[in-house]
Amino acid sequence: METRSSSGSTSESVTMVIHNAVIVTMDSESRVFQNGAVVIDKDKIKAIGQSPDILQQFSPLADQILDLHGQIVLPGFVNTHVHTSQQLGRGIADDVDLMTWLHHRIWPYESNMTDEDSYISTLLCGIELIHSGVTCFAEAGGQHVSGMARAVELLGLRACLTESIMDSGEGLPVSWGVRTTDECIQSQKKLYEKHHNTADGRIRIWLGIRQVMNSTDRLLLETRDTARELKTGIHMHVAEIPYENQVVMDTRKVDHGTVTFLDKIDFLQNNLLAAHTVWVNDTEIGFLSRAGVKVSHCPASAMRMLGFARIREMLNAGISVSLGTDGAPSNNRMSIVDEMYLASLINKGREVYKRGTTDRTALPAETVLKMVTVNGAKSVLWDNEIGSLEIGKKVRLFWFLLADMVVINPFSWSMVPVHDCISNLVYCMRTENIVSVMCNGQWIMRDKKILNVDEEADDNGFHAVWLQLNFSCLVFKSN
Amino acid sequence: METRSSSGSTSESVTMVIHNAVIVTMDSESRVFQNGAVVIDKDKIKAIGQSPDILQQFSPLADQILDLHGQIVLPGFVNTHVHTSQQLGRGIADDVDLMTWLHHRIWPYESNMTDEDSYISTLLCGIELIHSGVTCFAEAGGQHVSGMARAVELLGLRACLTESIMDSGEGLPVSWGVRTTDECIQSQKKLYEKHHNTADGRIRIWLGIRQVMNSTDRLLLETRDTARELKTGIHMHVAEIPYENQVVMDTRKVDHGTVTFLDKIDFLQNNLLAAHTVWVNDTEIGFLSRAGVKVSHCPASAMRMLGFARIREMLNAGISVSLGTDGAPSNNRMSIVDEMYLASLINKGREVYKRGTTDRTALPAETVLKMVTVNGAKSVLWDNEIGSLEIGKKVRLFWFLLADMVVINPFSWSMVPVHDCISNLVYCMRTENIVSVMCNGQWIMRDKKILNVDEEADDNGFHAVWLQLNFSCLVFKSN
Repeated sequence: METRSSSGSTSESVTMVIHNAVIVTMDSESRVFQNGAVVIDKDKIKAIGQSPDILQQFSPLADQILDLHGQIVLPGFVNTHVHTSQQLGRGIADDVDLMTWLHHRIWPYESNMTDEDSYISTLLCGIELIHSGVTCFAEAGGQHVSGMARAVELLGLRACLTESIMDSGEGLPVSWGVRTTDECIQSQKKLYEKHHNTADGRIRIWLGIRQVMNSTDRLLLETRDTARELKTGIHMHVAEIPYENQVVMDTRKVDHGTVTFLDKIDFLQNNLLAAHTVWVNDTEIGFLSRAGVKVSHCPASAMRMLGFARIREMLNAGISVSLGTDGAPSNNRMSIVDEMYLASLINKGREVYKRGTTDRTALPAETVLKMVTVNGAKSVLWDNEIGSLEIGKKVRLFWFLLADMVVINPFSWSMVPVHDCISNLVYCMRTENIVSVMCNGQWIMRDKKILNVDEEADDNGFHAVWLQLNFSCLVFKSN
Repeated sequence: METRSSSGSTSESVTMVIHNAVIVTMDSESRVFQNGAVVIDKDKIKAIGQSPDILQQFSPLADQILDLHGQIVLPGFVNTHVHTSQQLGRGIADDVDLMTWLHHRIWPYESNMTDEDSYISTLLCGIELIHSGVTCFAEAGGQHVSGMARAVELLGLRACLTESIMDSGEGLPVSWGVRTTDECIQSQKKLYEKHHNTADGRIRIWLGIRQVMNSTDRLLLETRDTARELKTGIHMHVAEIPYENQVVMDTRKVDHGTVTFLDKIDFLQNNLLAAHTVWVNDTEIGFLSRAGVKVSHCPASAMRMLGFARIREMLNAGISVSLGTDGAPSNNRMSIVDEMYLASLINKGREVYKRGTTDRTALPAETVLKMVTVNGAKSVLWDNEIGSLEIGKKVRLFWFLLADMVVINPFSWSMVPVHDCISNLVYCMRTENIVSVMCNGQWIMRDKKILNVDEEADDNGFHAVWLQLNFSCLVFKSN
């Protein structure tokens, strides 16, 4: 396998050479270098190839040479559906029915948050995401985008941030009120102006639609047009429960549900990230596929709250399906590593209802690994720069992908023996195996330690944030 | 809450007092001590109660006093279905159909193992189990019980070990041959004589039946009678796939499947641990319940290979349902912590097919925690000594439970904030939160370090076992 780099690159200043690693590139040829090396120049991947070739060419120019001792290097994982503001509400709504969950737990919690709460919540959520190898996430929509942005900037993550947008709907908490369509659009335009492309380009602002039952037709169409104008994406919860489809059929006069309605009003576009998308029929899968809509599958949350999404059918229809953790009160683990494991298990099990038995070949490991890397990057409209480890190639033009990477240590009781690297990554790997994480060319975790925030206990016992959270919230069942 | 101890206990020599912990007792009153303490005398729990009371009464007599700083103490977890011999085969049979899995991967692998392979495999499996808080497991049946017993004794675990028993069946590997019914029974009686109640009473020998399709009626009945004679349990795979039920209907002339047949021949007894038990109807659930049969639910393996077991219905029928990881090539994570999370998610999701939507209230956290503690102990017929943290009480008689315990650190990004201790244990806890494990009054893991085996890298790179396993087995997909 030849070393790929752009012509002339060897004469430039090279920051870092990582070598002696198993490199799972996730490129279009699914290349795996058993003894591979990557060259990182500032925020970009400058070259990738066999260790001896890379070392010969680049070590004289390297500021730093890192021997990874056979550890596994992958593109940073993309989590395409996260409610960062809900992190502090983890555990407030377990084992209760839907209406209690929403009206008596989540809405009162979310509607009472401040910008500072959102900052702390995103900080905690981001720490958990980084530990599971996430370098980029798509926020599902919260109240305080500025708080989120502060936390993302500090942690060093990459994110598409979205405001929670509703211009109608019954039963919402009084403190939220209901904004007009114009207020919704203006608010998001302001956020775009303030935060888009900030934090060294790591933060992008997307438009949000909380869900169809809280949106007027005008909001949907203005959102579509504004996204086109700003060249950004739209994040929306789609077809979550049968009741949603029923309401849409009753009020919007279509013959199936949300996706049919969104198709009818020409809302489905290739910049739409549709979260969950559980209750869709074959026709609707066709609509999504034709429009190039991206789907975020959240296995844990789907099992617990929504139902079995038709992932295999959507993948077969060519839809880019990625993975998301959803929010902490819906999951409650915020680990994209666990979602990989779940995605494969659940979709193998779901086949019982089509065939009478599970299908052990459904959603194989390679497919699942694509969902959190290349498909994730496509879903957040960032696949020209992230999602694989390679030198970009388009006709005769070379460009450089951004250095978002995860380093995994498979030499532990949780992953040995490694008969098949790819399948062990999906079926055995745990967050414990994630050693280091790089985003935009910067290490944001090294040797399991988050670098930009102090997450550890201090000398006096526990870190102030832990202390405050635990002891103010600790509610035990008895005694 | 009063301090409970037997009369006169304060005058005896006390080994250890653990205090300042959240103690989740799992006793019949579901007591949780927010600032609790436990007194351990040799291998037994001598007293349990509020920290101030216990300290006042026992600290003058204690050899060791341990302040746990608000960490959570639980009974050791019981994993009721594990193929320890399959640990080295993790990853050899992912994403392949059933016949490839069995005939071309698992059988060739298992039938070529030596006693030494089984020892190494059980050692690796045991390390992974301890890291997930397991203090006791039920082996599902392997070829080399002596190898398993050596590993269990060394690690300090508690186990019910079982030989893999078949006296008929087509397509088995030549090297296994087929043993006669008498050979099967005699072999197990010898193992019982040699290993039962060894390792300070931590090892018990059970009888095995691999599955109904590899058993004559005579083997089943002799096994039942021998178990009664030896006062031990029987571990058997039951109703795993629709095909099994079909074969039983065709060959054994019953109108449903394995459970109906086992009821007909009077095989169902309260010392039977039925693994999986996925394909059963209401009548059969009635048979299992009436006979007091215990069921081991293996969520990951069921989703991947078998189907949705009717767990909610079995629990409602009063059956003691516990949790198992199954073997590494079926899961592939050997973590009872992950099985708790999965059990709740999967059984909430399964309701879609009965009700049209998931039921978020199905299998709540308390139920799942019982499955890995008290129900686990009942399933391995050891509930008079393990499964809860309490002083045993029967009419006016006191006795002491064995000190099998797990210490959990919830003060990390994976579990905060702790709004509800029980639900965070089931939905958020990961193996990373398991800090220390005690079995039979002895620490077998402290501060995440296995005490009786060196699992870590040595100064030269990696521990010899890792090195050997990884580099001999490493098979990557490409390059």
